[in-house]
Amino acid sequence: MTKTRKCKYCDQNAIIRLAYANLSLCKKHFIEFYEKRIKKMIEKYKIKGEVMVAVSGGKDSMALLHALNKISNEAGIDVIAYHIDLGIGKYSEESKKIVLEFAKRIGVLLIVSDIKNDLGFTIPEIIKYSNKPPCAVCGIVKRWLINRVAYDLGIKYVATGHNIDDVSTMYLKALLTQDIYSLSRGQYEHMDPMPEIKMVGRIRPQFYLSERENRLYTILNDIPVVDIECPLGKRAVIHKYKVAWDTLLRINPVGQINLTKTMIKITKNLRETERELRQCSRCGFPTESDRLCAFCRLVSRFKSWKKE
Amino acid sequence: MTKTRKCKYCDQNAIIRLAYANLSLCKKHFIEFYEKRIKKMIEKYKIKGEVMVAVSGGKDSMALLHALNKISNEAGIDVIAYHIDLGIGKYSEESKKIVLEFAKRIGVLLIVSDIKNDLGFTIPEIIKYSNKPPCAVCGIVKRWLINRVAYDLGIKYVATGHNIDDVSTMYLKALLTQDIYSLSRGQYEHMDPMPEIKMVGRIRPQFYLSERENRLYTILNDIPVVDIECPLGKRAVIHKYKVAWDTLLRINPVGQINLTKTMIKITKNLRETERELRQCSRCGFPTESDRLCAFCRLVSRFKSWKKE
Repeated sequence: MTKTRKCKYCDQNAIIRLAYANLSLCKKHFIEFYEKRIKKMIEKYKIKGEVMVAVSGGKDSMALLHALNKISNEAGIDVIAYHIDLGIGKYSEESKKIVLEFAKRIGVLLIVSDIKNDLGFTIPEIIKYSNKPPCAVCGIVKRWLINRVAYDLGIKYVATGHNIDDVSTMYLKALLTQDIYSLSRGQYEHMDPMPEIKMVGRIRPQFYLSERENRLYTILNDIPVVDIECPLGKRAVIHKYKVAWDTLLRINPVGQINLTKTMIKITKNLRETERELRQCSRCGFPTESDRLCAFCRLVSRFKSWKKE
Repeated sequence: MTKTRKCKYCDQNAIIRLAYANLSLCKKHFIEFYEKRIKKMIEKYKIKGEVMVAVSGGKDSMALLHALNKISNEAGIDVIAYHIDLGIGKYSEESKKIVLEFAKRIGVLLIVSDIKNDLGFTIPEIIKYSNKPPCAVCGIVKRWLINRVAYDLGIKYVATGHNIDDVSTMYLKALLTQDIYSLSRGQYEHMDPMPEIKMVGRIRPQFYLSERENRLYTILNDIPVVDIECPLGKRAVIHKYKVAWDTLLRINPVGQINLTKTMIKITKNLRETERELRQCSRCGFPTESDRLCAFCRLVSRFKSWKKE
């Protein structure tokens, strides 16, 4: 028989126990806790005005859109949703449908890009012309497009749904594969806009929130979530490392947060010396490369192969 | 049905598969491989002359003593074994007995310190006067005594049986607990002697060898190993982190080695700025502290409490 825990702040039974914070919460107080965390993050970095939320249709970004929209008045931000139709068959169709319905329901302005129309290729088409893993290629395309669309609209900040599971797993994988490059680039909760190189600011309000919390937040608020897994990412190695956290968090429930904070601290020097952003000589958007950015390299490869 | 693997170097069936090296080996070639690794390490750091091997009676240090002794002529080193009777009941009695018998069998000079006689207390006695965990206290006493004994004998290097499981687990635990201090001290395969502060050189020839390899080496060479677990260390948290490697190594067999190499690389700067060794104002042996070393602090606490 498991003991029923009480909410820390009222008489109700708890519906979640957050071991990392030694905290049990009822529905009402969990939602309050969750939204307060998001609001504090926005306040910590003094974010004001228009914020474009990149929404895939998954639990993390859908929870983020809902929470940011709910706190927008108090926090003094204007939320705009942004969705990319990646052209990945049923997965993309379903995602777009859910995001459209949800944005309408909560009355948030939604911008949709269809990459086939906008860029001339779908993700399944472009990945064939790269030797990078599908998720890496898709990431390059999404980062570039999100930045361009926000920049063209004059928006200062883009918010994405990266959570502590994502971030800590990136660190775990990089550490266990000697991926010094990824470690030196690091992970950030916030990055200032750099208009001189056409870079929009980036924020990750769920940086220290877990998938589990995001999922619960969507359930409690009746937020729809795409229930198809992306067929291209199924075999990504990162999933295996993510599952390893089941073991590690049983030993230490604060392990993901601690690893992330430790790595941010000890890789500070690596980052400052190695990271220098310039403008891509073709598109003018930010890159670490001397000439073409990763996106333009991808596209030029795609175009030259198509010609042959 | 599992496929019988062949040894990489001959027709024999393999008795071990080393996933991290993608290598299957028979008995003869595993022993050869193991001893070559030890010898290469000694050559890499140009170790010559007398080497004092700290032997607890466990599989790691017993394997180390055997292997170092076997390669001693070729490598140009003289092996002396050193054992400390920690006064931990049956565990210490059994350990001493095994080490004595084994040193005699392989014809290695053995020095034994009995800490009750030498220092005036056993480990079970001294741990009561410290708020540090038992393993931490025992580590302080052993490090101090090993260094003093070797220094007094004019020996340049002490070899200890730290293996890749130990080292990588220290890193894993420190990362998951934000233990920046331990990370900044780091782990080393080799440390030069610093006679000006009475510090004997330290080497860990099994730094990149695993417990599994050490255990197999003891079995194949009929090396006795103490089969009692230290009763004071049973509940140490570090064991839980060690077990987590079962999960992580299934994802990536090179994970322990990669983590260790990565951490050594990225904590280099932390180490150089924070680590500065001086002489303890009481015993004259090395310490990072301004006044008393950790050992002398322990002893002074023990003595003042005993007086009361």
